[in-house]
Order: sequence, then C-alpha cells, then structure tokens
Amino acid sequence: MTQAVRHEEMRARNLEVVLGAVSRGGPLTRAALAEVTGLTKSTVSKLVGDLVEAGLLAETGPARAGERGRPGVAVVLSGARVASMGLEINVDYLAVHVLDLTGAVRFAARRERDNRGSRPKKVLGELQDLAVEALAETHRLGLEVAGAVLAVSGPVGGGVLFSAPNLGWQDVRPADLLRLPIAVELDNEANLAALGEFWYGDGERDFLYVSGEVGVGAGLVVDGTLYAGASGLAGELGHVVVAPDGPPCSCGGSGCLETYAGQEALLAAGNAVSVPALLTALEGGDATALAACASAGRALGIALTSAVNLLDLDRIVLGGVFTQLYPWLSGPVSEVLTTRLGGLRGAPPLLSASRLGGDAATLGAAGRVVHRVLADPAPFVTRAQEA
Amino acid sequence: MTQAVRHEEMRARNLEVVLGAVSRGGPLTRAALAEVTGLTKSTVSKLVGDLVEAGLLAETGPARAGERGRPGVAVVLSGARVASMGLEINVDYLAVHVLDLTGAVRFAARRERDNRGSRPKKVLGELQDLAVEALAETHRLGLEVAGAVLAVSGPVGGGVLFSAPNLGWQDVRPADLLRLPIAVELDNEANLAALGEFWYGDGERDFLYVSGEVGVGAGLVVDGTLYAGASGLAGELGHVVVAPDGPPCSCGGSGCLETYAGQEALLAAGNAVSVPALLTALEGGDATALAACASAGRALGIALTSAVNLLDLDRIVLGGVFTQLYPWLSGPVSEVLTTRLGGLRGAPPLLSASRLGGDAATLGAAGRVVHRVLADPAPFVTRAQEA
Repeated sequence: MTQAVRHEEMRARNLEVVLGAVSRGGPLTRAALAEVTGLTKSTVSKLVGDLVEAGLLAETGPARAGERGRPGVAVVLSGARVASMGLEINVDYLAVHVLDLTGAVRFAARRERDNRGSRPKKVLGELQDLAVEALAETHRLGLEVAGAVLAVSGPVGGGVLFSAPNLGWQDVRPADLLRLPIAVELDNEANLAALGEFWYGDGERDFLYVSGEVGVGAGLVVDGTLYAGASGLAGELGHVVVAPDGPPCSCGGSGCLETYAGQEALLAAGNAVSVPALLTALEGGDATALAACASAGRALGIALTSAVNLLDLDRIVLGGVFTQLYPWLSGPVSEVLTTRLGGLRGAPPLLSASRLGGDAATLGAAGRVVHRVLADPAPFVTRAQEA
Repeated sequence: MTQAVRHEEMRARNLEVVLGAVSRGGPLTRAALAEVTGLTKSTVSKLVGDLVEAGLLAETGPARAGERGRPGVAVVLSGARVASMGLEINVDYLAVHVLDLTGAVRFAARRERDNRGSRPKKVLGELQDLAVEALAETHRLGLEVAGAVLAVSGPVGGGVLFSAPNLGWQDVRPADLLRLPIAVELDNEANLAALGEFWYGDGERDFLYVSGEVGVGAGLVVDGTLYAGASGLAGELGHVVVAPDGPPCSCGGSGCLETYAGQEALLAAGNAVSVPALLTALEGGDATALAACASAGRALGIALTSAVNLLDLDRIVLGGVFTQLYPWLSGPVSEVLTTRLGGLRGAPPLLSASRLGGDAATLGAAGRVVHRVLADPAPFVTRAQEA
C-alpha cells in the first residue's frame, strides 16, 4: 500500500468501487454506499454525482423502508446511456445483441445464413449491415455503444481468426473487412458463450460450458473468471481424443471428439440434412437418429471424463445445438460419466442444458464490454465532464 | 480502499510487503526497501527491526557499490530460525526434506521401502521415525519447524487420503496415526511436485508437471499458482481416456492412461521387475523394454494431446520415474504431440524432464510452508515479541 498513489488513480479506483457496489447490491443510497465502501459521505456524493452525470448511474425513488443509514435517494445502474454490442458469425446464422449497462437486451437480431465454405468478405459485409442496423436502432434509443465484440468459432489471437474449418476460413482479420464507426474485438465463441452463461444464465461461478456446433468448443469458468490458457486457446474440447484410431479429423489428428459429436458427424450418422430435421426425426422416434445421438453422447461422455479428471469439474453446461439435443444426449453422457468417474470422485458432475441456448455467445460478447465499463468507469466520467 | 483499515492489519500487510520485497529482490538496504515499497524510511526501519528480531531477516555486510539509495546495511532472508518439513509416502520409499526460509536444504533423507499393499499404521510409524530424526537434526541446527506437509499419491481432501490404489489404502487420515510435536498437513504428490518444480526447479510460471509413478498424476501451474479445481482433485492425468475399450483400470473405467503408462503397466510390458531393472534393460537395448517405453510414450502423447487441447499448455515437465525414462519416452511423446497438435497450434508444447526428479514432491511440500511464512510473517513477529 504505497503512499504515492496518485490522485487520479485513487479517483478512478473509487469510481470503480462505487459503481461496482451499486452493480452488485443496488439500489443503494449515498449513505449506504459510504457504509459499504468505507469512503466518506462527501466523497461518495461527489463520485455518485459524477457517475450520474456520465449516465452510468441513475437516481431512483426514495430508498425502501427498513434500509439502514439515513433515508435518501438511492442510485441504480443506468440503462439510459451506455450500450454494448455482441456479434456472432455462426455457420448457420449471423446474430447481434445490444445490451445496456444493466444487462437488459435493447436490440437483438438473427439472420439465417449458410456460411459453410463462404468468402470472408461477403459474410463480413452482411455482418456489417446487421451491425449498422443495430447501431442505428441503439442511437435512436439515445444509447452510446461503448464497444463491440465479435464471436467466432475457432482459435483467435491478436484480432486474427486463425482457422474456422466450418466456414473454410484461415487467418482472417475481421476488423480489416468491417467498415463501422466503432472498433470490433474478436474472441472465441465458446469462451464468450461461457461468460454469457455466467453473467446472464445460471450464474454459477465454476463450470465447463460446452459449445456444440460444427466444431465442439468449451469455455472453463473458474471462480467467475474465464480460464484462457497460455495463448488464449484453452477449451478445444473438440480435439480431445476419444479413440486414437478413430476417423480422421480436420485438425490433422484422428478420433477427436469432433469426429463423433460435431454437428456434421451427428447429421451424417443420423441421416439428417439439418439440425431441425434431426430434431424432427428424434421426436418421431427414428432409430437411426436416436442411435446417432446415443453414440455422440457416449463420445462426449468420454471426452468429458478426460476433462473432469484433468480439471476437477463439478458442473457441465451443454450449449449450442447440444442444448436442443439435450433430451437425447444427456442420458448417454451421464451414463459414461457415472461409470468412469464414480470410482474416483463418488458423484459425477452436474449436467445441465444451457439456459441461453444459441444466444449465449452474443450475450457474452456484449457482456464483456458491459463488464469492462463497470470495471473502469473513469474514462466515461472524464469524457462527460469534458463534453 | 476503505479508511477503516485497522492498524494491526496494516502492520501485518506491511510486514508481508517488506519480507516479500527482500525475498524477491534482496539483499536490499532499508533505503532501497523504502523506495520499492513506497513506505517511509522510519516505517521500514521498524518493520525490518521486527523481522530481524523474529529471525526472518538477517543483516548482511554493507550494500554493494553502485546500488541506488544511501549506503547502509542490507538485509536478506534469514536461514537461521524458521524451517519447514516436507514428507512423502511413495510406493517405493519414504522421504523427508527440511528447508530453511531461504529455500536451502538443511536435512534430507530417503528410506527405500516396498509400500505396496501395506498397512497404514506400519508405514506411518516408519514415517514418524523419519520425521522425528529430521526434527531432532533441525533443532540441533537451531531451527524451528514452522510446519510440515505430507505428499501422498492419490486424491486428498480435509486431511483424508481418499484412495491410494498403489498402497492399497482407502480413506486414511495420516494425522490420526502420527505422533509428532507439529501438525502435518496432507496434499497430493503431483500438485506438490509441480510447486516444487516451480519454486526450486525450472522456475517457469506456466506448465503441466506430469508425475509418473504407479499412478500418473499431474499438477498444473498457471501464472505461478497451482490450479487445484473445484474440489482440489484436478490433474488426474492417469485417468484421461487413451482408448475407451482399453484394459480395465483400478478407477472403474477402462483404457485410462495409467493402464498404458503407469509404472506397473510399464514394468509388465517391459518384462522387468523394477524400474532399475527396466533402465538396465533399456540401456542394454532390450527390444521388449524399448517397445514397452515406446508404447507408453505414445499413450502419454495421446493423453497429453487431450490435456493441451483443453488447457492450452506451452510447456510440459515429465517427473517421477518419467524423469529417468525420459530418453526413451520423449521421442514417442513428441511425435504424437507434433502430429496431433501441429494443425491447430503450429508448434507442440516444449517437453522436458524434471530438474528435481524424485525430490520434487518433498521440496514442494516443504516449500509450501516456506511460502506461507513469507506471505504472512506477522504471527512470527508477534511471537518473538511476546517471548
């Protein structure tokens, strides 16, 4: 605790402390905020005033009866000024979610597309149109978009999507092909979906989120934080080895989970042309479709056994198309987990379907900017004061 | 940053800050300490005085020429007062390491034993004798043992070793069977060995340590911290699935890594009665022994492929008997990693043999107490002042 903490740093930190306290426990009066933060009432009043002026906090009615501290006007997060945009390029669709600072959805859209083997320029052009539409609507609502994050299915780093075998893309830098008034960051779909599930879904602090798409990815949330790995490439569950002599995989290996439980493998085994067609067949009790799901479920169970043994997971959430297929997958997955993990762990991890389904990635993408603003509100306050 | 930080908490924190600064960057003069910690010179002088009195710091000669700040007497960690004991029950031996606060080894001993299918009471009785001998020698050196940690091969929690199939133990609480003047904590061998490797071996901040024993365990160090998982059971690499229809495993599953690369599996495949016999056969170019190692190495490569895909590892350290077998294992392991990971990651992770070999677990066990003292020196200072 150095004595040389500069005034600006202290102010930035106190703004964060106050905004964070309201975010976690609001509505709160200034008196209650002074109590929970340990700051003086006059400091809190100044900070709250600045945050209200910047549109990050809003005053609400009088505090509820029975609240401790002297009565007064409480403040809550404001949904009236700052917004955040989450975008996704999926093999089957393009999607956008706009959230305000309270996490409320202010705009959402999804365009069905077959993006398999597509040209990056064409797909990103369509994504740009969708983003422009979302930005226009957001501005119409009086909101300012603080940032945007784009979710893609594949390993990313430094703004580059290294490979997306499902799209047929290699080393694409989306920012180079998007003409938008705001910067768009790139991140992995499974990681963002895991964060979406944490912030806006189940809210559990420790779980593995499994994203079943053409590829099978995973995002590991440990004590409320994403585990990204040495190079941000963690969670490649799709390339966990199920059987070393299994079918060849796009990664150069063989017998990876993706060759058993990836969307294309599932549809081929189930003799279905699309996920909706597979679901119809499953609901109709089609034997081929049921066998395909059972087989994919067992492979998923084996890969998850390895993941649980390595990561010590208590909770697994199945997302992406696995959410829709959950009624047919969960039995075989659970059976393998129980057989293989019962001896060492006693109980297998809890298995559940994602609460957000296909919205998890765009919600997580937008949520990332929301949480960045909450963690560092000072620039917004400064900008408001300079305006 | 509350204004209600109590004086005692502040003092405890400042003691930690000063001790930590010396630990990382010593020798340091009081003036240099004031500079790096941001504390006033008079506060630093008082804190250093208390830490010297408690035997945690020692004054050294005059500071080196060219050092910034005014000349004066520098302080370093003191190896003269506080010590820490690391113990291990291995299937082939019992071992102890005593370290002082500087990390120097002050006592070490190893007793070869065949602990397979042993009675806990007998083994822990022998371990107690070893610990008593170590404590006597430590006291003779004028050192006080601040704590002891016992490394065991198996999942642990709340002081209980849940299972150690190699020893034939189930639900053993070693503390109940040890009569020692100090408390002995229990922890997993692979986790402690990973920490030992981090603190006293390679010093890399991110790696997976693989412990090849009768079981195959692993400890994941992420940014200098052990990843323990939801219940402290992470790193069960031995039960990562190599081939789902492989040999039955003691865990209840089948085709786990342990059934291919565990010590018993290796010796059986190599037609050797012991690890030294296997090494002799390998050095003599025995075809059966070489084939056994190649096959175990390929299985290890497959399990590590799954681990790298999940955890995004840049560095893997092979420990335990894998250290001795490294010349014969590393080729097959690397080959599998390169083939299976080249496509997604470009380069496979760096593979190396443990620098500490069989000492990693006891060094890590003792190091855990050393680092606990460094992180919270206040109780030692208080005790010295009350004495």
